[in-house]
Amino acid sequence: MSVGSLSDFAAGGAMAAALGEARAAAERGEVPVGAVIVDADGTVLAADGNRTLELSDPTAHAEMLVIRAAAARIGSQRLSGCDLYVTLEPCPMCAAAISAARIRRLYYGASDPKSGGVEHGPRIFASPSCHHRPDVYPDISASASAVLLREFFAARR
Amino acid sequence: MSVGSLSDFAAGGAMAAALGEARAAAERGEVPVGAVIVDADGTVLAADGNRTLELSDPTAHAEMLVIRAAAARIGSQRLSGCDLYVTLEPCPMCAAAISAARIRRLYYGASDPKSGGVEHGPRIFASPSCHHRPDVYPDISASASAVLLREFFAARR
Repeated sequence: MSVGSLSDFAAGGAMAAALGEARAAAERGEVPVGAVIVDADGTVLAADGNRTLELSDPTAHAEMLVIRAAAARIGSQRLSGCDLYVTLEPCPMCAAAISAARIRRLYYGASDPKSGGVEHGPRIFASPSCHHRPDVYPDISASASAVLLREFFAARR
Repeated sequence: MSVGSLSDFAAGGAMAAALGEARAAAERGEVPVGAVIVDADGTVLAADGNRTLELSDPTAHAEMLVIRAAAARIGSQRLSGCDLYVTLEPCPMCAAAISAARIRRLYYGASDPKSGGVEHGPRIFASPSCHHRPDVYPDISASASAVLLREFFAARR
């Protein structure tokens, strides 16, 4: 599908917000991944970063937190028509949650060959039993996202 | 690995509790799936059923709720040494969360050819990039679990 210049601008703004959430996560000592959900009108429904350490919750990836927050906000477990922006390729858990939430478009930054679940590993959306597949736009602001992750892990070595 | 008679008894008790959570979920109008997490000493850390409708949360499967509750209770995102009992084969999201939580053993009831992610679909634990695989014990009290699901969906037709 084609994405016009206005959408390109909107996508860039939402990914910039996701990168801001990733930076805030790094400052909290969490792996720097951030995510934003925008509805069909362009309203930001939820924005958050990884909080697995803070919440002692292995499921508290950025994507899961924004899906839960956005669904609670609109009072429905279906986020049809909404788009999710995340700075890193979603893991299999998050990719499956994105499918369950009926997210329309998934935009993500850096690829994750080690733990990704979209273009790597179990490739969730390619499974014949995947009941909903978002349109997927990889490689959005990927270098900014990768630099953040690299700096974070380098500083902890 | 071999499971002795004492462990068989414990497994039966935990799965009976999971079936009780599944029945309670049905009474709330939720798809009847229940789950229990037990630590290495046999203490039940968390027990819950599916609450996706009640919470407007597409991630609120029984397995996710007990993983989050058990991890919060012990103050760690790692549930190493803990076993998870669930009445239905976990979906890909839940299977990946079980891996992320480092669950030791997964016991489940009925198979789920349509939406399962352990022996069906993307077969999460079989992926080379799956970083932790629990020992898996399928077909525990499977018929009781399948009857519950069948009755629930038959009543809604």
